[in-house]
Amino acid sequence: MIRFTTAGESHGEGLFVIIEGIPAGLTINSEDIDLELARRQKGYGRGQRMCIETDTVKVFSGMRHTVSLGSPIAMYIANKDFKNWTKIMSPTSVDSEVTPLLRPRPGHADLPGFMKYGVNDFRDILERASARETAARVAAGAVCKALLKEFEISIVSYTSQIGDVTADISSVEECKIWHDAEISCVRCPDAKASEKMIQLIKKAGEKGDTLGGKVVVVTKNVPAGLGSHTQWDLKLDGRLAQSLISIQAVKAVEFGAGTKLASLLGALSHDEIFYDVTRGFYRDTNRAGGIEGGMSNGEPIVVTCTMKAIPSLANPLHSVNLATKETAEAEAIRSDVCAVPAVGIVAEAAIAVELAKALKEKFGGDSLKDMKKNVNIYKERIKAL
Amino acid sequence: MIRFTTAGESHGEGLFVIIEGIPAGLTINSEDIDLELARRQKGYGRGQRMCIETDTVKVFSGMRHTVSLGSPIAMYIANKDFKNWTKIMSPTSVDSEVTPLLRPRPGHADLPGFMKYGVNDFRDILERASARETAARVAAGAVCKALLKEFEISIVSYTSQIGDVTADISSVEECKIWHDAEISCVRCPDAKASEKMIQLIKKAGEKGDTLGGKVVVVTKNVPAGLGSHTQWDLKLDGRLAQSLISIQAVKAVEFGAGTKLASLLGALSHDEIFYDVTRGFYRDTNRAGGIEGGMSNGEPIVVTCTMKAIPSLANPLHSVNLATKETAEAEAIRSDVCAVPAVGIVAEAAIAVELAKALKEKFGGDSLKDMKKNVNIYKERIKAL
Amino acid sequence: MIRFTTAGESHGEGLFVIIEGIPAGLTINSEDIDLELARRQKGYGRGQRMCIETDTVKVFSGMRHTVSLGSPIAMYIANKDFKNWTKIMSPTSVDSEVTPLLRPRPGHADLPGFMKYGVNDFRDILERASARETAARVAAGAVCKALLKEFEISIVSYTSQIGDVTADISSVEECKIWHDAEISCVRCPDAKASEKMIQLIKKAGEKGDTLGGKVVVVTKNVPAGLGSHTQWDLKLDGRLAQSLISIQAVKAVEFGAGTKLASLLGALSHDEIFYDVTRGFYRDTNRAGGIEGGMSNGEPIVVTCTMKAIPSLANPLHSVNLATKETAEAEAIRSDVCAVPAVGIVAEAAIAVELAKALKEKFGGDSLKDMKKNVNIYKERIKAL
Amino acid sequence: MIRFTTAGESHGEGLFVIIEGIPAGLTINSEDIDLELARRQKGYGRGQRMCIETDTVKVFSGMRHTVSLGSPIAMYIANKDFKNWTKIMSPTSVDSEVTPLLRPRPGHADLPGFMKYGVNDFRDILERASARETAARVAAGAVCKALLKEFEISIVSYTSQIGDVTADISSVEECKIWHDAEISCVRCPDAKASEKMIQLIKKAGEKGDTLGGKVVVVTKNVPAGLGSHTQWDLKLDGRLAQSLISIQAVKAVEFGAGTKLASLLGALSHDEIFYDVTRGFYRDTNRAGGIEGGMSNGEPIVVTCTMKAIPSLANPLHSVNLATKETAEAEAIRSDVCAVPAVGIVAEAAIAVELAKALKEKFGGDSLKDMKKNVNIYKERIKAL
Repeated sequence: MIRFTTAGESHGEGLFVIIEGIPAGLTINSEDIDLELARRQKGYGRGQRMCIETDTVKVFSGMRHTVSLGSPIAMYIANKDFKNWTKIMSPTSVDSEVTPLLRPRPGHADLPGFMKYGVNDFRDILERASARETAARVAAGAVCKALLKEFEISIVSYTSQIGDVTADISSVEECKIWHDAEISCVRCPDAKASEKMIQLIKKAGEKGDTLGGKVVVVTKNVPAGLGSHTQWDLKLDGRLAQSLISIQAVKAVEFGAGTKLASLLGALSHDEIFYDVTRGFYRDTNRAGGIEGGMSNGEPIVVTCTMKAIPSLANPLHSVNLATKETAEAEAIRSDVCAVPAVGIVAEAAIAVELAKALKEKFGGDSLKDMKKNVNIYKERIKAL
Repeated sequence: MIRFTTAGESHGEGLFVIIEGIPAGLTINSEDIDLELARRQKGYGRGQRMCIETDTVKVFSGMRHTVSLGSPIAMYIANKDFKNWTKIMSPTSVDSEVTPLLRPRPGHADLPGFMKYGVNDFRDILERASARETAARVAAGAVCKALLKEFEISIVSYTSQIGDVTADISSVEECKIWHDAEISCVRCPDAKASEKMIQLIKKAGEKGDTLGGKVVVVTKNVPAGLGSHTQWDLKLDGRLAQSLISIQAVKAVEFGAGTKLASLLGALSHDEIFYDVTRGFYRDTNRAGGIEGGMSNGEPIVVTCTMKAIPSLANPLHSVNLATKETAEAEAIRSDVCAVPAVGIVAEAAIAVELAKALKEKFGGDSLKDMKKNVNIYKERIKAL
Repeated sequence: MIRFTTAGESHGEGLFVIIEGIPAGLTINSEDIDLELARRQKGYGRGQRMCIETDTVKVFSGMRHTVSLGSPIAMYIANKDFKNWTKIMSPTSVDSEVTPLLRPRPGHADLPGFMKYGVNDFRDILERASARETAARVAAGAVCKALLKEFEISIVSYTSQIGDVTADISSVEECKIWHDAEISCVRCPDAKASEKMIQLIKKAGEKGDTLGGKVVVVTKNVPAGLGSHTQWDLKLDGRLAQSLISIQAVKAVEFGAGTKLASLLGALSHDEIFYDVTRGFYRDTNRAGGIEGGMSNGEPIVVTCTMKAIPSLANPLHSVNLATKETAEAEAIRSDVCAVPAVGIVAEAAIAVELAKALKEKFGGDSLKDMKKNVNIYKERIKAL
Repeated sequence: MIRFTTAGESHGEGLFVIIEGIPAGLTINSEDIDLELARRQKGYGRGQRMCIETDTVKVFSGMRHTVSLGSPIAMYIANKDFKNWTKIMSPTSVDSEVTPLLRPRPGHADLPGFMKYGVNDFRDILERASARETAARVAAGAVCKALLKEFEISIVSYTSQIGDVTADISSVEECKIWHDAEISCVRCPDAKASEKMIQLIKKAGEKGDTLGGKVVVVTKNVPAGLGSHTQWDLKLDGRLAQSLISIQAVKAVEFGAGTKLASLLGALSHDEIFYDVTRGFYRDTNRAGGIEGGMSNGEPIVVTCTMKAIPSLANPLHSVNLATKETAEAEAIRSDVCAVPAVGIVAEAAIAVELAKALKEKFGGDSLKDMKKNVNIYKERIKAL
């Protein structure tokens, strides 16, 4: 069974992730992980922090000569910024007083965390709640992407909306979408929309404001039958929904045609089934987004995530001083103007981990070789259906 | 730790649910559970099955003289329709052949399940994948609602959209929304929209078609601090998202202002924080839907679910005969024209279970008395913050 | 993933077990489950209750025409004795008062449960803590035995000690051990020791006392590589230890030579490795009991469980009245004089469930056919090592 | 919910442990963790490795100025020996060939792991299976000991047997046992037995052999009511058994009088219950070892673990070359002659983690302050029972 856990504060010494259950014999190059970390750091509208950090991963365990051992893979991403925070964030005692943060930022974990944990300084909360943690999730996702790649499963994404500017990719060739997304600085394959998005981000930044948006994540070549209909917590879409909504600032998740399905008649809501000897079972439409009855159906898995505008505003919102209870402006903590492009990368990683889990659940296999044999036998059975 | 599991097929003898971790000393009347089951069966546009079944629950264990013992509560809901299915659905051997279902219905678990489990008759899949299972989830939810009620936490819902008809409740008084939802046969508190929805359902039924829609579920009086920001799988919104998306036919979930947040500037996306001696910390808006940083923030938790039109159409869609691979019409299996009103009740139950889990996780307590003391101490600490 | 949960009180209406994750396509006859339930009821020294109950299972879900669907299997075992307990154990309200139990029995859950759950009558505790629950575990074990059997994995056990009488099977042929255990009324393959055990039980019964003992459980034909060394909670022996120690009254578990290994030098503690083309890798000794480094090593898995004498004595021990706090004799609640023979059957079931879990974890497979293919490929790889 | 995971190979760069769920506000000094790590390294009969390593912990996250934040605590223990293994154990590619290990050691994970993971060099297995990993478990245990200490719960242990030498502590005053254990170089409070044990270890070492033994671990001041009787996987003794048996080389676990209970009559197997206003409920004996019905009963929890002699012998046992299949001597890999004293420390840590889990499960509390209030209320209720 594949499972992972992360640790680390935003301005602590570094971020950790331990991912378990990756079969032995998988080649994983740190460079590939670093590529994903770099993709996460890009995007027009990112804040100062992204200039300080050039995230790279150090693999500490579970790998020998770039090949997985089957044992837990521990990875570490240093926070270069820590050198400016050694006193404030030292795990051990320090001889100087630290000024507590007391003016919680609406939209963040600051106030609920302050109440829940009974702390005196909500830096104790924000440091762990920060989206900085997603770097560790992207590292775990990169390992899982390497595993999925061995089964020709690939995950891509693009920015479909920033603010009130939405992309129109109806006329863009399928393969070009992903290429153009990678080269766009807002990861949007619609050039015109890209331009408007950049202007919008500029304007918001100048006003000390922030912007949200939407990303679409597509996973291709998923075999039919991952996840299960038999119990609520085994359904693949439920597991993906938890993984995606748990990404900082993601407030909605839609599968396939998503919210549009509310207004469509049944006849236009589903994907008629066809068969042809070479393709096997296929569909001309994909309104279900590749998941029916909690199981992958062989079509691409299409998920759309809505990210709210980041709650750290240069023009702080109305708040309260937790000590005096007097009205105050929320703490102004440096952040991005828009991080929607980055959320696409984090969402890819979150989906990669859940699909790797479901793949190993279905096919077992403690070595990559065994796992490949089991997958191939299944694919042959499906073809011969 | 509260956990539950369900079992049972749609036309099998009955549905089971075992829920564990409910503290000892909680009074639960079967009648209250039956009320929730009846709410689930209502709704204009429901199919024949709902006339056959009048679901009531039989509590087999974990209770003594209507009071919980702290041990697992096993509940059983008989399928009255089973008497017509004894041969087809008998767990033990039968002396007659059964005609297999071989024309999978687009949008259902039929085809992916057929492939995944290597069965010869996808009735083996649909019987468990059917939304009939949600009756067992509503029973579990009713037990959790009884527990939440002891802490003055209540969960209500209404239908906000069916097909292209959306409710406008901007002028409806807050308390009236829930009352009017209960008395509307589509559970919509906007009388005009209700009427249009009924007409829409009638028309779709006549065309052999089905309709989807949206429900809004609101949980009131949730203490701040349920769920946690510290790890991805502890975040309350992620857990709620999994629980809701795992409901049959739910294809999108939105927290607070949900997908609208994509286009809002930061200054309009968050809920400014105020304080007043009597109310403590409060907000005038609730765009976050009561969850910030993966934790309840004390405001009502507001979630919107999109349900696709049910994939069982009287005018079946294009499919394929799994044996001959020839084009065929999908199996026409009796179903509802519209089940959106019912999905509100199932969503309430799904949320009730996750909140009960998070409540026990935070406050512990093996008896209701102990749990109440722990909650009261916390509330006092928060007030004195 | 295979998982199970039980519910039900000893004098409630019945016992429930839901087991999930059993692959589709497995033939399971209720009669085979009933056989295991009957084996559990046998044994010289059992109390009155075993004359009242003739346990048989009713399969409610997850099966169709004796074949598993891949969905949760719900099984129910009625308590025939319930008819004498309807008032005392009714889940719903009753019009008469019930006399609470207030003189806890040393060695039982009575007092710790009374304190933990804040109940007023420790019948609320004993009814669920009772070993009656193990009937549900044996039903789950029987389903898993049917799955293991498909892979030629078998589980047998015998009574090795009752009181101070220990069996000597050094001269009994291996296959005869299991046959003789089944026909012995104390399940002991050493005829002489059996006789002495019966006398011992008689004597204890006459004195109002009870007896404990030891059982040895052997699982044969387990492929090497179940469980994993990579994390503490994946180690197969740790998982078996939890499952066995959680059986009522089991107070020690030993793997292989167990406690004897404390005094053996290294040279005599391990199993030297040999190889031969037909047998592959083998060992002449099995001091490790078939598990090394938390993984099955291909040799039989040998586990010994110590069961304490049952704490319900006809001659009650010293206790205290929980209301008055005065000295009192513990409640005298009807029970067995010796249940060691039965604990062997429950231990077989507990081991069967854990091995089925580990088997599915390693080989995946949602249908028995797929699982068998995956196991065969692995076995071929091991042979060709 | 408290949970932990470890990563790291024996000759890799270092060991990692992430422990989650520790409430905010707990003071934890690295020095206290280092003390436990040092206790683990001690013991007459330890091998060379213990001279190379002087384990100290570096806390990377979850703590600020020695106080826990409530977020995951990541700890790292460097392997000083790594500098001699950089080529052999490098996670990234190296330019030189590495000679694979091919002569598996009986009693280790070498052969089952080689088969399970399909590796070509069982160093890929032994590096993670090695008892070196227990340093990470002792670090997690030290954090949990700090939490338990806040509730006056303490865990102590002593060596009760090495080889055929057993300690007789019947005449040693209770408090002196633990003091004398700490100052004995085999952690045995019976001075005479200590001397004999040391001679035994010397002799075994000279013969290239190894020794096993037994340790007794006692946890004091545990409130009644941790763990639960209501489901098999919630029983405290079952959870402790898994945690202890998962320690490398532990082959048996006994609760209270353990295996001796097999031969005792019921009247002598249980702990009669008494009451006195000041002490509340108490027992004069503790044959149950502090756990009845899967729950702590308020008496000290007493567990005995049997450790087999370490399978790495200077006089290697009979094995097979995995490449040629020819008879060969097992690899001679440097190890301890006797590590029984150390297993006491690791067992203390394993128990500390499970008790901390059960404590938080019962009392909740995200801050130490909240948790303390909840525990005090419960203790008052129990006193007033």
